[in-house]
Amino acid sequence: MSYFTMSKEDLQKQYSVLKAHFEDCKAQNLKLNMARGKPGAGQLDLVSDILGCFVDPAECFTDGIDARNYGELAGLPVARAYWADVLGCKPEQTFLGGTASLNLMFDVISRAFTHGLLHSPRPWCKEAVVKFLCPSPGYDRHFRITEFFGAELITVPMTATGPDMDVVEELVKDPQVKGIWCVPKYSNPEGIIYSDETVERFANLKPAAPDFTIMWDNAYCVHEFEGEFVPFRDIISLCEKAGNPDMVFEFASTSKITFPGAGISVLASSVANIAYFTDLFGVQTISHDKINQLRHVKYLQNKAHTLEVMKRHAQVLAPKFKMVVDMLEKEIAPCGFAQWNKPKGGYFVSLNTMHGTAKRALALCKEAGVVMTPAGATFPYGKDPQDSNIRIAPSLPPVSELEKAMDIFCTCLKLAAIEKLLEK
Amino acid sequence: MSYFTMSKEDLQKQYSVLKAHFEDCKAQNLKLNMARGKPGAGQLDLVSDILGCFVDPAECFTDGIDARNYGELAGLPVARAYWADVLGCKPEQTFLGGTASLNLMFDVISRAFTHGLLHSPRPWCKEAVVKFLCPSPGYDRHFRITEFFGAELITVPMTATGPDMDVVEELVKDPQVKGIWCVPKYSNPEGIIYSDETVERFANLKPAAPDFTIMWDNAYCVHEFEGEFVPFRDIISLCEKAGNPDMVFEFASTSKITFPGAGISVLASSVANIAYFTDLFGVQTISHDKINQLRHVKYLQNKAHTLEVMKRHAQVLAPKFKMVVDMLEKEIAPCGFAQWNKPKGGYFVSLNTMHGTAKRALALCKEAGVVMTPAGATFPYGKDPQDSNIRIAPSLPPVSELEKAMDIFCTCLKLAAIEKLLEK
Repeated sequence: MSYFTMSKEDLQKQYSVLKAHFEDCKAQNLKLNMARGKPGAGQLDLVSDILGCFVDPAECFTDGIDARNYGELAGLPVARAYWADVLGCKPEQTFLGGTASLNLMFDVISRAFTHGLLHSPRPWCKEAVVKFLCPSPGYDRHFRITEFFGAELITVPMTATGPDMDVVEELVKDPQVKGIWCVPKYSNPEGIIYSDETVERFANLKPAAPDFTIMWDNAYCVHEFEGEFVPFRDIISLCEKAGNPDMVFEFASTSKITFPGAGISVLASSVANIAYFTDLFGVQTISHDKINQLRHVKYLQNKAHTLEVMKRHAQVLAPKFKMVVDMLEKEIAPCGFAQWNKPKGGYFVSLNTMHGTAKRALALCKEAGVVMTPAGATFPYGKDPQDSNIRIAPSLPPVSELEKAMDIFCTCLKLAAIEKLLEK
Repeated sequence: MSYFTMSKEDLQKQYSVLKAHFEDCKAQNLKLNMARGKPGAGQLDLVSDILGCFVDPAECFTDGIDARNYGELAGLPVARAYWADVLGCKPEQTFLGGTASLNLMFDVISRAFTHGLLHSPRPWCKEAVVKFLCPSPGYDRHFRITEFFGAELITVPMTATGPDMDVVEELVKDPQVKGIWCVPKYSNPEGIIYSDETVERFANLKPAAPDFTIMWDNAYCVHEFEGEFVPFRDIISLCEKAGNPDMVFEFASTSKITFPGAGISVLASSVANIAYFTDLFGVQTISHDKINQLRHVKYLQNKAHTLEVMKRHAQVLAPKFKMVVDMLEKEIAPCGFAQWNKPKGGYFVSLNTMHGTAKRALALCKEAGVVMTPAGATFPYGKDPQDSNIRIAPSLPPVSELEKAMDIFCTCLKLAAIEKLLEK
């Protein structure tokens, strides 16, 4: 029954029942974690044969290169070809990074501030103000990078088809607006896939800043856990066709394909941007881990085989997401105070609860031993103006723990909502 | 016979003989490389069993951590303990980086410029002038990092016991002097080991800048190729004792122990600096490659076993360095126009040829197919004021090629010297 139609007395009764259950849970001293998009142990087990797949030194020789030595800053040709296949771009449009695409994103923004991008009139640190667009809810680690360098973060609303492009097209008329963060497929946290129209409108932006940059984090490009692989457009060639060849930097990694933090990452962009950044990256490193590049190419082979590996991950992930959505449907839907997405890929369920209650709900969760991404984290500066959005990350706990965690989570959502209703 | 005592006619005769030999060599279209401190294939073969040493997923669990997943930004406890053993510091004074210590150095300097170090009154980019001391001859990639961020590079002369500390102690009285590059053991390129007195004087510096920083690149800490391991002092505890606990950042990696560019790296410093930088590094990455950390700890075990591995490298390297020095003794010593060091470790032989002839000699080398580190590279801005210093890197070519390369190199040194003498 909807909380909005319940009497004060009924709400109070309901609160007492929930509070008793909450205290029971608390007494169990649980330690449950739905905070981060970490794969569970079951997923890691499925790909642990990667450890033994590359043991023969004879296989270190590829395209006339000894991968055991320094060299090939942009990555081995076979690794660049692998990512070109996965992303639908050209090998010469790729640069292989270390284990983390986040570090590549950081380095692009960092160098934009200290040295400028290819078309920057000056380094961004010499600009009076740098504004950066943050479609929200979004990924806190993205926002933090631009905040770290002193950019002014501007919230752009999300829609069911991606960032609100009317708003984006209007905002980029300001020459102080230097870029935007995007997760085009299974966006973090909403699990939205940008529509073809949204992607086209991105490629055809007419920003006032000559060095406006789209940070296109394709983190979940092959990360379906339900249904078939959903093809995506190659943003690099779309930008080129639209006369914006150097406007986009695309990122991806194997962090949620093989081992998080021990995989390979890629930056993909125009050949001109790759050349510009290969020069800059040459100051900080001689070459990245080519042995790990070979190990991954041998293990993942190509896009087709990578999709096979992803089907194995899906078998572990799908029941977890089903558990989350089923629990929400059963426990929260009837109360009428929250909405959530039902993604078919990615790592998150985004939930909007009663305004002004997200922080309180998550404080209660913490009290009962359930760690969640902090409320507000999905907005610039960690401040959700409506104190409503919560990111649920169900991948880490086993299903049995997840059920317990979701039970507590739903209880806390309800407690916070009733407290809010009763204080009126 | 010394060129300085030869008649013009004899020099001209000698020149003709050398020139004919040079043309013979040129006609062979050789491609020989003594440019970079790259291990040779023989060294890589010796350690290629590292590829197969870590294949069992059960070994991914260490200290209650699943190394296959995100986490442990500062590195696995076993990896921190490994480096503490090698460097003689404490595990909590270490931070494990990616594959390249150069990238850790870059990140420290980069963050000093954009955000400041622990005791910086402001980020270095907000200072009117930042000066950085560069003991020369030194390592071009060090100098380039500070040049990249706009620091003014100041040459400090090298002595047989390390940088000239009288000069250093004087220069650090200038508050604009923010740091110094050091390679304390088998310095690049001179192969000098800093004396205990030099190391003590470094620890006891009294710089005017509160955030003065010693970039202590211990790249060759266990890299003897002749004789027994030479112990080194722990600069971190020395600085602490001297009341400068946060003044030094030490760096090391396995790049010349296992595979260059595919190993593990470390930053070692005070606990306060490690805490400060762990916070900063948390913006750019979630965690570094812990699988590779485990693989390396399993393979190298500890300092004692690492020294055993280094003895294998020494067997390959020693004959190469002997070849270089023997050739120089035989071909160049009698001519009296050049001096060189005879290091017992590291990767280079530093040679000072007749002033004003290094560039010309290396241009001739290039013409004959021998690639060397560009003349001047060992000085700030790539400019050797005396056009004299040349860095010889004999590790990459097999001995047979090295003999040919050194023959050409000696010929070119002589040609350039005679040209200079004849133009007077």
